Amino acid sequence: MLLFEPFTINTMVLPNRLVLPAMVTRLSGEDGFVNKDIRDRYLRFARGEVGLIVIEAMGVHDARSGPLLRLSRDEFIPGQTDLAKAIHDCSPGKVVPQIIHFLKVARSGWRQKIKDLSLEEIRFIIEAYAAAAGRARQAGFDGVELHMAHAYTVSSFLSLRNARNDEYGRSLENRMRLMSEVILRVRQTIGKDFPLGIRFDGEECIKNGYTLNDSRQMALRMAQLGVDWISVSAGGKFEDAIHKPGTPLYPYTGYSGDRCMPSAHYPDLANVPVTEAIQKYVREHGFTTPLIATGKIRTPEQAENILQGGRADLVGMARALLADPDLPKKARNGKEEKIIRCTYGNVCKNLDENFHKVTCVLWSKGSLQAPESSDDQAPMWPDHGAQLKAESVKGQIFLNWNPATDNEAIYGYEIYRSTDSHTFDHLTSVKRTTYYDLDVVAASSYSYYIVAYDLAGNHSSNSNTVVTRL
Amino acid sequence: MLLFEPFTINTMVLPNRLVLPAMVTRLSGEDGFVNKDIRDRYLRFARGEVGLIVIEAMGVHDARSGPLLRLSRDEFIPGQTDLAKAIHDCSPGKVVPQIIHFLKVARSGWRQKIKDLSLEEIRFIIEAYAAAAGRARQAGFDGVELHMAHAYTVSSFLSLRNARNDEYGRSLENRMRLMSEVILRVRQTIGKDFPLGIRFDGEECIKNGYTLNDSRQMALRMAQLGVDWISVSAGGKFEDAIHKPGTPLYPYTGYSGDRCMPSAHYPDLANVPVTEAIQKYVREHGFTTPLIATGKIRTPEQAENILQGGRADLVGMARALLADPDLPKKARNGKEEKIIRCTYGNVCKNLDENFHKVTCVLWSKGSLQAPESSDDQAPMWPDHGAQLKAESVKGQIFLNWNPATDNEAIYGYEIYRSTDSHTFDHLTSVKRTTYYDLDVVAASSYSYYIVAYDLAGNHSSNSNTVVTRL
Repeated sequence: MLLFEPFTINTMVLPNRLVLPAMVTRLSGEDGFVNKDIRDRYLRFARGEVGLIVIEAMGVHDARSGPLLRLSRDEFIPGQTDLAKAIHDCSPGKVVPQIIHFLKVARSGWRQKIKDLSLEEIRFIIEAYAAAAGRARQAGFDGVELHMAHAYTVSSFLSLRNARNDEYGRSLENRMRLMSEVILRVRQTIGKDFPLGIRFDGEECIKNGYTLNDSRQMALRMAQLGVDWISVSAGGKFEDAIHKPGTPLYPYTGYSGDRCMPSAHYPDLANVPVTEAIQKYVREHGFTTPLIATGKIRTPEQAENILQGGRADLVGMARALLADPDLPKKARNGKEEKIIRCTYGNVCKNLDENFHKVTCVLWSKGSLQAPESSDDQAPMWPDHGAQLKAESVKGQIFLNWNPATDNEAIYGYEIYRSTDSHTFDHLTSVKRTTYYDLDVVAASSYSYYIVAYDLAGNHSSNSNTVVTRL
Repeated sequence: MLLFEPFTINTMVLPNRLVLPAMVTRLSGEDGFVNKDIRDRYLRFARGEVGLIVIEAMGVHDARSGPLLRLSRDEFIPGQTDLAKAIHDCSPGKVVPQIIHFLKVARSGWRQKIKDLSLEEIRFIIEAYAAAAGRARQAGFDGVELHMAHAYTVSSFLSLRNARNDEYGRSLENRMRLMSEVILRVRQTIGKDFPLGIRFDGEECIKNGYTLNDSRQMALRMAQLGVDWISVSAGGKFEDAIHKPGTPLYPYTGYSGDRCMPSAHYPDLANVPVTEAIQKYVREHGFTTPLIATGKIRTPEQAENILQGGRADLVGMARALLADPDLPKKARNGKEEKIIRCTYGNVCKNLDENFHKVTCVLWSKGSLQAPESSDDQAPMWPDHGAQLKAESVKGQIFLNWNPATDNEAIYGYEIYRSTDSHTFDHLTSVKRTTYYDLDVVAASSYSYYIVAYDLAGNHSSNSNTVVTRL
């Protein structure tokens, strides 16, 4: 598989082409230091053998916020050095921090706008990015990624809604000015041989926001400025965020948040076409800068197809790796069937939106980390079998089955469905032994079977198959 | 061109494959009757030879609203009969009304929700659609299109946000129940030989809205129920509408409104991929139901490519035909160069949002209709030439040129641009002799020329070409 071929980015050689994009955890304290929970989270990913870990955004400045790592002062370097070393010690993968500048938000719903920033404050942002990137290098990371996506400062300058009247606003060139200055100043600080990546929105997904027409020109500029990789996201903006009284306005709560982390209701690979179009544009202009595609890429097979099709150079998976950090290792060893599958139910997204620690709904209740087990004994159905039953209830299909047993623990049940005798697909996974299927229509027939899985991803035999109609 | 081949839908033969999708005009009174302005608007389209005119939505019921045509009572039939006849008298094209049911909205921002509807009220909606469709047939229209898109009643049932707990909500089958019942009852009323189409959203483009995953199943259901055409729109929902105090909540004001009528900032053919995917799904299930693609399809050439590529069966253009109702006739006669080009600046959309009569910004000031002229004398530049000049001003490129003259009247100026010596494209059109280009970056060079055009679309020679950089 191309997915498990090494990939060189500047001076860093990734063992494979799977990337963990920066994903908020809310596990750090508000002091900005690496703590045990954060450390455990990233070491867990590292042991799973993902090729590149992008550690969640770290503040380049000291402005107040909720739980957030920082690289805003030298005192944060030792903790990050320890984290980088620990990851390197247990994994062939590479690790870079994502660094971020953000503006102020208040519980009242008020937020600082880029229009309010003086030229001196803009100068400070550029210097803060450069200094933080320098600290990333000092800490022994393999590179650094600049956060220029979503609702944060540089993205707000890039936005088509940037209404500044000076040289930082209105025209595309002016909107890209801060981005360009940050990239140049960071490069000057970290040197040519330290890998430098950007994460940005391929589409803003808000009213009067930018689309591919602009983003491909932004990506070309990044390539021209010598950026080493471009990671494409979408949406995640303040403009359509839903204000929950008493809490600071939080992006990802509106439609643009849906587009940033597409749920089960979205087609797979929802944001890949935009990444592909950006890549094409950058290539047509003579640049080979690697592009990272993200957004509901569920399986190693889908990732491989993206690479084989030349649609992107690297594949990012956030929620799929949260559900199973061992996905890369299992796939590399030909044990795809042991992968614990994300359901894209976005419980993780919801936890984040409600300012809770981010965990996966599939994990054991109360656990802050994905389980780890080397057990290889598969779950068993009881002697009288799974006895899966399906019935039509009020225009929905209700499934129930017998619980399975396991030497360690039953972790959950995968539900497979075939519509009108087509191929069986993974519909979702649940912890209970019941499920209501709402995605059904009267003209079709549906076949289901259930598979029980344990903490290591060992799977039971398939349950009986039931065929039903509304 | 395939575009100018006839196309048969049930008993109606369209002379070509260009469709005018329903487009609000705000030209009617609040009494629901056809008036002179409405009549003039549609006769103007008819003379332009578009293959199928879908007349803007007409209420199937009497609920209060702003300017809106009605088919809610028999007294509306004579006016519609006259309109249908007048259109037939001056055009080889066909004409159908779009019929709509909507819920109540108030100036306070309050709106009636589908959750509030009793089963009896739902029954009324079904009967009202059927009766109005029957009146459409009586009036001599060639068919009828049911509005099941955007923020209106049936679409709100189809929505993934439909939260009804009865047989009309939650599961996909239940969400499609009203749609199915309306289609069946309408068909029963109008007979098998009266063409029946549906307009619906391929994507809702709102938080927790549906996507292609559901819309392709809805389209399949329509095909199974014997619908004669499916016209695909997107967005236009209440859920993300922006409430302007003192006015009723209006869809199209939020992001989903942008996606419904994609502006100049969107890639061309923005909604075609969803239509194409729906068509593929319907075909795979053995149905040949024609699909109409819409959404920033700018030129006859693009329309032809869509048809040649098998991406849709018919092509809808709303804003392009508003800018130039004669687009079909000009293209059929090989006079594409005389087409007045829409700028996708969405001034028309803005007028609608602000409850004004909908006109085109390119039209002569104060005019309620597109100009009509058979003049064939082209505009002229003055003796000393257009003297187009370009200069870089604060990260933008400022253009100015001399006014042209014409025997009738100068209508506007088209601006053509080439980036880095690539092909020249139509950038936009303006009435003034100045323009600020904001879509520019420092690394590129831009060449421009200007063409003056008159009311008939006669074009002057190209101005001098200027090459500039920021």
